[in-house]
Amino acid sequence: MRILVFNAGSSSLKIGVFDTGGEAGAQVVQRLKGGFGRFRDGGCTVHLQAADRSEDFTAPYADLAAATAAVPGLLADWGVTGIEAIGHRIVHGGEAHDGPATLDPETLAGIEALTPLAPLHIPANLNVVRLARAVWPDLPQVGVFDTAFHLDNPPRVTTYAVPQAWREAGLRRYGFHGTSHQYVAERAAQAMGQPLGDLRLISVHLGNGASVCAINLGQSLESSMGLTPLEGLVMGTRSGDIDPGAFGYLQRELGLSVAQIEHDLYYESGLKGLTGSADMRDVEDRAAAGDAQAQLAINLYAYRVRKYIGGYAAAMGGVDGVIFTGGIGENSASMRRRICDGLQFFGLRLDHDRNLAPDLDNYAAPHIQAYGSKVAVIVTETAEQLQIAREVAAHLARPMPAARPIPIAVSGRHVHLSADSLAALFGEGYQLTEAKPLRQPGNWVANERVTLVGPKGTLENVAILGPLRPRTQIEVSRTDSFTLGIEAPVRDSGHLEGTPEIRLVGPAGQLDTDGLIVAARHIHINPADAEAMGLEDRQLVRVRIGTGDRALTFARTLVRVQPNAFTEMHIDTDEGNAAGIGRDFVGQVAAGVEAFVGG
Amino acid sequence: MRILVFNAGSSSLKIGVFDTGGEAGAQVVQRLKGGFGRFRDGGCTVHLQAADRSEDFTAPYADLAAATAAVPGLLADWGVTGIEAIGHRIVHGGEAHDGPATLDPETLAGIEALTPLAPLHIPANLNVVRLARAVWPDLPQVGVFDTAFHLDNPPRVTTYAVPQAWREAGLRRYGFHGTSHQYVAERAAQAMGQPLGDLRLISVHLGNGASVCAINLGQSLESSMGLTPLEGLVMGTRSGDIDPGAFGYLQRELGLSVAQIEHDLYYESGLKGLTGSADMRDVEDRAAAGDAQAQLAINLYAYRVRKYIGGYAAAMGGVDGVIFTGGIGENSASMRRRICDGLQFFGLRLDHDRNLAPDLDNYAAPHIQAYGSKVAVIVTETAEQLQIAREVAAHLARPMPAARPIPIAVSGRHVHLSADSLAALFGEGYQLTEAKPLRQPGNWVANERVTLVGPKGTLENVAILGPLRPRTQIEVSRTDSFTLGIEAPVRDSGHLEGTPEIRLVGPAGQLDTDGLIVAARHIHINPADAEAMGLEDRQLVRVRIGTGDRALTFARTLVRVQPNAFTEMHIDTDEGNAAGIGRDFVGQVAAGVEAFVGG
Repeated sequence: MRILVFNAGSSSLKIGVFDTGGEAGAQVVQRLKGGFGRFRDGGCTVHLQAADRSEDFTAPYADLAAATAAVPGLLADWGVTGIEAIGHRIVHGGEAHDGPATLDPETLAGIEALTPLAPLHIPANLNVVRLARAVWPDLPQVGVFDTAFHLDNPPRVTTYAVPQAWREAGLRRYGFHGTSHQYVAERAAQAMGQPLGDLRLISVHLGNGASVCAINLGQSLESSMGLTPLEGLVMGTRSGDIDPGAFGYLQRELGLSVAQIEHDLYYESGLKGLTGSADMRDVEDRAAAGDAQAQLAINLYAYRVRKYIGGYAAAMGGVDGVIFTGGIGENSASMRRRICDGLQFFGLRLDHDRNLAPDLDNYAAPHIQAYGSKVAVIVTETAEQLQIAREVAAHLARPMPAARPIPIAVSGRHVHLSADSLAALFGEGYQLTEAKPLRQPGNWVANERVTLVGPKGTLENVAILGPLRPRTQIEVSRTDSFTLGIEAPVRDSGHLEGTPEIRLVGPAGQLDTDGLIVAARHIHINPADAEAMGLEDRQLVRVRIGTGDRALTFARTLVRVQPNAFTEMHIDTDEGNAAGIGRDFVGQVAAGVEAFVGG
Repeated sequence: MRILVFNAGSSSLKIGVFDTGGEAGAQVVQRLKGGFGRFRDGGCTVHLQAADRSEDFTAPYADLAAATAAVPGLLADWGVTGIEAIGHRIVHGGEAHDGPATLDPETLAGIEALTPLAPLHIPANLNVVRLARAVWPDLPQVGVFDTAFHLDNPPRVTTYAVPQAWREAGLRRYGFHGTSHQYVAERAAQAMGQPLGDLRLISVHLGNGASVCAINLGQSLESSMGLTPLEGLVMGTRSGDIDPGAFGYLQRELGLSVAQIEHDLYYESGLKGLTGSADMRDVEDRAAAGDAQAQLAINLYAYRVRKYIGGYAAAMGGVDGVIFTGGIGENSASMRRRICDGLQFFGLRLDHDRNLAPDLDNYAAPHIQAYGSKVAVIVTETAEQLQIAREVAAHLARPMPAARPIPIAVSGRHVHLSADSLAALFGEGYQLTEAKPLRQPGNWVANERVTLVGPKGTLENVAILGPLRPRTQIEVSRTDSFTLGIEAPVRDSGHLEGTPEIRLVGPAGQLDTDGLIVAARHIHINPADAEAMGLEDRQLVRVRIGTGDRALTFARTLVRVQPNAFTEMHIDTDEGNAAGIGRDFVGQVAAGVEAFVGG
């Protein structure tokens, strides 16, 4: 499929034409790339590049609209025909869009309603969409949202500690640069030779806008931009973080209005506010010549990034790789050094030579850490247009799956023990005794019980499930974790790296062990049922429960295809309560509940 | 000296009477402590406690002023006489106060002028001061400022990336809770048995207000509150960090004014905004009972603290100890667990039992980390009134030192080599040759030179100073560090832990080594001169250079008393340029410059 991508910023337009293979995951080939910028005096600069031809020129396109309108003619001049779909980068998707969306009139109206969230960017985006719809009325037009990658960030990340009325009015963290962070995270995982879902990555996108993103086991956990693209790092002209008391101070001392302050935070702050120049190359040269303001700006810029990396490593319980991208991230070896120096305490060390001039051609993603560094450091050029083309192709290829019923079981808190743990709690040589079998073949509840002890409280008579496992795992509900007073992460069974410790008490002794989790909801399914329902192992699906006002959708439910599995979905007691499913100890299918699996 | 301390918050008043020894550093003994709170219906609660007597009652004091006015009578009732000085906690000292100050009319006028920086707290503080001055007109009244400990935070910390006009209008980071952070850092260093100046500590003060402070080698580096006490952590009723775009959004969507938003950020946000209750004990109990809002509030609260700890560890290049204090920090074992779980990746692990119920009586500061934890974790009760009494005593005891001249030398960039480094750069068995002696006995400049290579640029012909040292150390100016493109920390000579790597190139080879620093300014002085000038080894002093408009004061200049030293102050070329001192290569005393050493 041949896809034309529009990536409109506030003062520039990038385009790309891509051929995607027929299959999801197939190679994507760029046929043309183009950029329009430096709009002034009724004209702009244009850069166009194909495999065998490259041109730079100025043209009489006065603004983004004029540049967009010129694209069909330029494509014809360059012999690019057969466009089958148009992709658009849209800066904000609000709470409605966690993935690409076909830009029909209803969807566009929904995006327009988000204008208060990004008053500067959304009108520009929609303008380009409208022009493209007029030029190519018969082609599918698909929006890819900067916020979508972060939309499932957990509530502790998306919530500001402000009054309820403000939160209900839409004040929450979103995060931006999602297309870039997602692309470079996937590219880095490839370069590291490990599945993205096994890695804790920190993506550092340093362009004119700048943000850091923690990508925890394949999902965006948090990024440094929040409600708007103002929060977080120091940027070219944006302030990043400031004290919320600054508004009152500036109003009282300088008589400024909110609109004036906000304008200057967007356009007169950041590097420009500190040095007069928004261009890091200028600032670095001035600093080397002894300019104290430029030196301070660089110090502050790097220091803020380094603190975010430390904070996000703490948020994820560690970090396997740091990725630099964006103009500054890709090109400033000294900025990478400034940011990384001081992170040796958790095992990150740069290599002097590798860092100096990494070769980023052809989507390369070279490692620049020192030998022996425990944390990988990778530099790669971001490829937002490529990523948008990929997502557009996948969106258009995705069949709308038929909803299919699946039974649901509510799991109570329980413990899986290792042989060592069993011996510590019940004595050497002790054997668990089976009380009753569970629905999953070969699994059973034991007659024995243990007590869980946390810093706040205790849970007694907790079930033990057999048989023994290589590693002890303790599964509780979220509310149980508050009773204990320990923050248990939501994890898939068996993924216990970095989980917190808990004290187990048995009749013969006690032990402190890690392995405390809130089990991520999941679907056990055997291969025959999986094939019949069109599900694949490790797939994440949505499950809807109930209808009407009581309907509830569980996003990101993991499919686990196992031989002989009894097909059912497992949720914890909090989820069961939320869905109005009666609580039972383990493995009971809640009668009368309808559930559907969606794509 | 018997000192009465007033610590007035926005809605409570604490007092303390302390006897300090005659000597600085002597034991301070508390004779009386008191608290007034829950002001409503024309009355308040009162708690008074002495060694052998403790009382709780309600009294008809309608507000802070009435409670303050009642203090003399209560002291008389409790037989406390002989007050010799009064100490006052003052929330904001602006840029004028980096230590305690006698509260004369001029100083009070200066504090009053800071009201825009803390419009809620300063009037309350000044009210108490005025009442105390009326009651005890003949006693010295000394202010101890919450901001003073942080006032020397480096510019990368104190600067917001905003327009110059705003920065000139006073928009900068200050930081608060300084008295508490300083006290607990000193207490923790004692408990760890190491000098505070050798430690990288993170102090976590979690009370109704809450802040985190990075204390780097004895000095406050940064704290999470900024211009105002709104920035940073989630607090009882304050929001902490929010997107600067929130003001515009709330004004457009809800029609709120800056004053309304600011009020609610101070009084209706934080735990209260999230759950309706500002009391963490309530919130924890509700969370354990399954209240989803309370669970979210706790998650968010702990998550924000954990990210700050990670960020400050990154800022300092590591952390040796984390200190918990304040009501929540002292009392919530589960909050400490939530914050610390996930920090194992840099070697921090809590001990289950030690964390459960640490005994904090009598200013104890127990360790609660697990055996083998690389980072100490300490819990201690903060003692702001005690610390204020100490500082008041020291302030009143401090003689005003006479200014004394000292010669100044400007040090150019240079390298000290180890034997291994010499061999790597010049070949096995190579010996440096002396070109000329330096003024410090036994030190000389070699004929040989090396080249420094960084990611941005190169410095050639860099001097080597002899003799060889156990460890290679590279001293450059701040501007040199920008030429190289590496952030060199300001360090005392020989303090090279966690310093960045630099490439050295010599005629026979090259090597990458750590040890790159900007040398902290210092005074070499021999014992005889030190005694004559009233200086002590390791003392930090201020040095003033020039007079009038060109006058410049170098704060925190380290005194190093060494046998046979030639007495002079060393500064780097940037400092020399700033002071208008002509640059010379090494060790030359700049003629005609007058300098004075102050206390």
